[in-house]
Amino acid sequence: MSKDGKIYVVGIGPGNREQMSLMALRAIEESETVIGYRTYIDLIEDLLEGKEVINSGMKKEIERCNLTIDEAEKGKVVSIVSSGDPGVYGMAGALLELSHKRKSDIEIEIVPGITAANAAAASLGSPLMHDYAVISLSDLLTDWEVIKKRVEYAAVGDFVIALYNPKSKKRVNQIIEAREIISKHRKPDTPVGIVRNAKRDGEKIIVTDLKNMLEHEIDMFTIVIIGNSNTYRFKGKMVTPRGYFK
Amino acid sequence: MSKDGKIYVVGIGPGNREQMSLMALRAIEESETVIGYRTYIDLIEDLLEGKEVINSGMKKEIERCNLTIDEAEKGKVVSIVSSGDPGVYGMAGALLELSHKRKSDIEIEIVPGITAANAAAASLGSPLMHDYAVISLSDLLTDWEVIKKRVEYAAVGDFVIALYNPKSKKRVNQIIEAREIISKHRKPDTPVGIVRNAKRDGEKIIVTDLKNMLEHEIDMFTIVIIGNSNTYRFKGKMVTPRGYFK
Repeated sequence: MSKDGKIYVVGIGPGNREQMSLMALRAIEESETVIGYRTYIDLIEDLLEGKEVINSGMKKEIERCNLTIDEAEKGKVVSIVSSGDPGVYGMAGALLELSHKRKSDIEIEIVPGITAANAAAASLGSPLMHDYAVISLSDLLTDWEVIKKRVEYAAVGDFVIALYNPKSKKRVNQIIEAREIISKHRKPDTPVGIVRNAKRDGEKIIVTDLKNMLEHEIDMFTIVIIGNSNTYRFKGKMVTPRGYFK
Repeated sequence: MSKDGKIYVVGIGPGNREQMSLMALRAIEESETVIGYRTYIDLIEDLLEGKEVINSGMKKEIERCNLTIDEAEKGKVVSIVSSGDPGVYGMAGALLELSHKRKSDIEIEIVPGITAANAAAASLGSPLMHDYAVISLSDLLTDWEVIKKRVEYAAVGDFVIALYNPKSKKRVNQIIEAREIISKHRKPDTPVGIVRNAKRDGEKIIVTDLKNMLEHEIDMFTIVIIGNSNTYRFKGKMVTPRGYFK
């Protein structure tokens, strides 16, 4: 091997170029090969001139990680890209797990990004200003019973709750059940923020409440943030007090 | 008034310039006045030439927010800076609350940043790859009983737990009690990551376990991440499986 390969697991942030970090830009610039899910590759197309680009379909995470390690083992610098932060339901975990299983010695650097919960929070006001729980409602890889239990404890503990993957075309019941569980512990007028395409083209911001939240469009591009017992609304914003004005 | 003022609440990320977003850079560039806690102002000093700079001491959050609104009401574009993400225990909440109280109509834009939990996670491996809870152990603004309850529910719910403000010079007991509570629900060999100065100069990364975590230095510049029941260690990394390899 003429030189050592390296893998960057790059968080490109929520989607708008402006929310990307300088480090993410540099990692992609340094890379000879860039690998990712088609939708994310499209978001950074202008950065890819002269590079080998491998894009693949959804749910092919393990295939993508294997390819990334294969290419890096040839001595290349390879970026595998994730939207948001690769360390939050992104590619960092699968890649590290696979490198462990393959007993690969390739250097791996995780490049963090702004994750969807924080991007959505910025558009909503300041809902995450106190202790919060981040929960994915997708039961593709996790038992629904485990997820439900987490929703319940987060509700009882009065955490602000950020829900990733709240609903998909085939998976429509989880958000209904989650709302029911949370409603046992929080008032119907608890503020709820629903942000579709947070900090990227086509962003749509709704501030509603626990009682009415299901009347709004929710899908895989949406993050739902449910306030704690102190969260309040004003001028279309959602604010969780830290405790300065008690 | 000759023109409308505007406030940017800017997350400068964990500290290293490379982790800052393009939007954060642009907001500061656009601003005539930049306000912040001294330590954070120092981190961006090279960006401040020709600008009015107002830096202040710790625990002066409300004073700083009032000043920011005052300056913006004179028609200026003002950035108030926070480390990490201003929406996570940062300046976004206090500023919005104060603008509400003052009935100010000034435009406020929250510019998200990479928060310490995600920065630390990237340095540790992929500890936040499954549902996680973010808890501040500081009882300056929150009753310790409320915080303890949250630690308990996060532990019972098998969340990965990211602890902000784990310890200060005067506040040394919270991390001891938090560890005790979590230990009732998790094994002594549960992986724990301790990152001091995550993604900034002088970064120090330790991967240890619940039994031994208190043997290491923990202070206000430290984030502590406690794994869930599936988190494992390999080659000095901390990995929480998402569920791809069940």
